[in-house]
Amino acid sequence: MKSTKAYAAQSANTDLAPFTIDRRDPKPHDVQIEILYCGVCHSDLHFARNEWGMTVYPIVPGHEIVGRVTAVGGHVKKFKVGDLAGIGCLVDSCRECENCKEGLEQYCLEGAVFSYNGNERDGSGNTYGGYSKSILAHEDFVLHISDKLPLDAVAPLLCAGITTYSPLRYWKVGKGTKVGILGLGGLGHMGVKLAVAMGAEVTMLSHTPSKEKDAKRLGAHQFVLTSDEEQVKKVAGSFDFILDTVSAEHDYNFYLGLLRTNGVMVCVGAPPAPATLPAMNLIFGRKSFAGSLIGGLPETQEMLDFCAKHGIVSDIELISMDQINEAYERMLKGDVRYRFVIDMATL
Amino acid sequence: MKSTKAYAAQSANTDLAPFTIDRRDPKPHDVQIEILYCGVCHSDLHFARNEWGMTVYPIVPGHEIVGRVTAVGGHVKKFKVGDLAGIGCLVDSCRECENCKEGLEQYCLEGAVFSYNGNERDGSGNTYGGYSKSILAHEDFVLHISDKLPLDAVAPLLCAGITTYSPLRYWKVGKGTKVGILGLGGLGHMGVKLAVAMGAEVTMLSHTPSKEKDAKRLGAHQFVLTSDEEQVKKVAGSFDFILDTVSAEHDYNFYLGLLRTNGVMVCVGAPPAPATLPAMNLIFGRKSFAGSLIGGLPETQEMLDFCAKHGIVSDIELISMDQINEAYERMLKGDVRYRFVIDMATL
Repeated sequence: MKSTKAYAAQSANTDLAPFTIDRRDPKPHDVQIEILYCGVCHSDLHFARNEWGMTVYPIVPGHEIVGRVTAVGGHVKKFKVGDLAGIGCLVDSCRECENCKEGLEQYCLEGAVFSYNGNERDGSGNTYGGYSKSILAHEDFVLHISDKLPLDAVAPLLCAGITTYSPLRYWKVGKGTKVGILGLGGLGHMGVKLAVAMGAEVTMLSHTPSKEKDAKRLGAHQFVLTSDEEQVKKVAGSFDFILDTVSAEHDYNFYLGLLRTNGVMVCVGAPPAPATLPAMNLIFGRKSFAGSLIGGLPETQEMLDFCAKHGIVSDIELISMDQINEAYERMLKGDVRYRFVIDMATL
Repeated sequence: MKSTKAYAAQSANTDLAPFTIDRRDPKPHDVQIEILYCGVCHSDLHFARNEWGMTVYPIVPGHEIVGRVTAVGGHVKKFKVGDLAGIGCLVDSCRECENCKEGLEQYCLEGAVFSYNGNERDGSGNTYGGYSKSILAHEDFVLHISDKLPLDAVAPLLCAGITTYSPLRYWKVGKGTKVGILGLGGLGHMGVKLAVAMGAEVTMLSHTPSKEKDAKRLGAHQFVLTSDEEQVKKVAGSFDFILDTVSAEHDYNFYLGLLRTNGVMVCVGAPPAPATLPAMNLIFGRKSFAGSLIGGLPETQEMLDFCAKHGIVSDIELISMDQINEAYERMLKGDVRYRFVIDMATL
């Protein structure tokens, strides 16, 4: 066991603060990574504050992890010391169920092991995430990271990137697809970049006029201010696909009305209140309302390679570890364009 | 104009009763049909009683219409006098929008003209449905009916048949697909027959134990009593596709839990209250909740041909026209196996 510096919350009401965790010694298939950067996801805050009621304390958040390999177990074949490497939301799964076999480890039928607040399958306890100096995982759950992109801005691809990439791919977004991206935050800004790179015609849907400039800079072909009736009328019934990245309560029916026949709206954010949907809003137009959760390991690697090829990274603001609590407050106000990333050298 | 015997409701609170309507003389592309049988759909009752708040009185319901061609306009190419023919829920549409061009007239962007309570596109007023001696429509909205099947039992295919056939086809149900059919009524019993004929593994989901025998007789491979926890546990997470034919209020989340990863649940019934869906129930498992509305003309013909090939008709109870009000009451109690069909010779 190795003592490792980290930042943890000890209860729902306490700030994150320095904490020491024990990391296991590398097992034969483990890759050990010195964490260089870790992105800050809204889920980190939900878990730190137990807003989903399932937090086990102390909790060390962080699942947008990039760094450099410092040790590998004797059976590791895919990585060597010195390689750049990443870990996303998953560090293990059963590997034997039909979903795992298809590379959909996020939907593992026995329950995937999440990078933090997860239960190690060997019974050794809770997982600790990326707000720490190092981490290790079975090589099958470690990603190769290109050296062609700025490493700090790559970190958010491990959650925000794959969360938006996966549904765009699954629902075959590409040339000729009219895509609406709902919400311009950590997820939404990645959704715009990825959908544009896939060749889709991309419209940012937002109720914040000031986001128009940014949306266009990120590559969106069009911006629709959803509070402006005239603008909305022009795009009613026009989208093949809407990627809904909003975690705050909102009226899904309004956006379903923007879908054309056979259109699909996919939620990747989970508001506190359930959606209220008259079946008629789906029946007329054969529309689908769906959800999608991050992505499996093969697809996450595919996404990282896609981003390397297309020069896509997240827009980030680099912070030091001791700024994390302030960053959470700013995140709650939407005051970040578009992802905080912690420079782990500051821990 | 031709006076035509019919049955109409004059208000939301009055029974259906004899009424005389005027039908236009055949236009060059019109096919005129002597109605022999007309199925009784639950929508007929909703409209007769203005339960959806959009009924224009007097209303002549009926959109599961089969009969024999008695006259054709000079330009009609597809039908000749004496042919068997059918009319379903649609009698016209714009024919020029992208949906009409794709044969999805039910989703016509200008609004399809429904067989009753619809607005004729030439401004000539309201459409009257199949509870009458004759009807006529543009040949493009008239279907060919096989003489190999009992004509009375074919009638419900025009709505109940296509409503269930279309989503099964659109979501590619076939060999290897595990399908759950929710609700064993007019729609559900057709769903079972059609999904079985398509090669799927079909499970009837019902809270009525007495329906097991019938479900099996109709071809269902399995019956799950949804009030029995043990039975439900065995099929949790197992269906690729659930066809939800229930129009009464029910908990969609319960059934979403029966879907496997990537599963799709499609509503063809519209309960009075909206669905209440936590996004999480879709996100975990990449599930879709969708809707589907009848079918377009090409697909309706395809369905009729499919049924002729596979010997599929509806299970019906033949009634006389003057039994219609009683039939509505029995329909409300679910006391019909599984579709009333009016013998129009009795009008």
